[in-house]
Amino acid sequence: MTTHELTQIIDLYFTAWNELNLERRAVLIAQVWDKEGRLIDPPLASSGHIGISEHISALHSKFPGHTFRRSSGIDSHNGQIRFAWELMTPQGTAMLTGMDVGELTSEGKLRRVAGFFGPLPELTQA
Amino acid sequence: MTTHELTQIIDLYFTAWNELNLERRAVLIAQVWDKEGRLIDPPLASSGHIGISEHISALHSKFPGHTFRRSSGIDSHNGQIRFAWELMTPQGTAMLTGMDVGELTSEGKLRRVAGFFGPLPELTQA
Repeated sequence: MTTHELTQIIDLYFTAWNELNLERRAVLIAQVWDKEGRLIDPPLASSGHIGISEHISALHSKFPGHTFRRSSGIDSHNGQIRFAWELMTPQGTAMLTGMDVGELTSEGKLRRVAGFFGPLPELTQA
Repeated sequence: MTTHELTQIIDLYFTAWNELNLERRAVLIAQVWDKEGRLIDPPLASSGHIGISEHISALHSKFPGHTFRRSSGIDSHNGQIRFAWELMTPQGTAMLTGMDVGELTSEGKLRRVAGFFGPLPELTQA
């Protein structure tokens, strides 16, 4: 998989997050996600194309008019990926930042994406 | 799994990385890794207890006297984890920083750890 192909997949992943039309979203999800794909965020975990679409709908219900956008390059090796994102309000400010880590199938689809919110926690000495 | 138990597992994971004695390392690996566990770093990927120990040996061959240490708190949700680390020279300076992301089994052992080196890449506009 080339860097260009990987960037296309991840950009379509964000397009799917931001798509409100369920039919168009289903097409996007089928393009980027494996049938058994798992989307695992701190408040919600889902799997399969329908589950992932419902997961995205739940986000839009909670934060109407908000959009996700990628805020870093994409780091990848051995099918493992990471990148940063921002959740933007309709007014265009970032209300939440975080990162996604995941794994691609050998066909280049998303097998799993796990989101983490905010920066890494500080080291606390015991 | 409590925060305390998770911290213990991750700290033993680092102890295993730094253990030069193969018998003691095998005991540590069996304590923290699932039998089918996968360790996936940019230069090398391995699986299973023996494969993971050989992976660790390869690191020590390449960087004699170096040690890994955790450099952030541990962020976790739904069995997904992330934390930062530093690879220290024998002189005590960090020669490489990075982060590990991974997943635990329902028994609380490491199913998969993927390492990423350095900071996230910058966003480049197409």
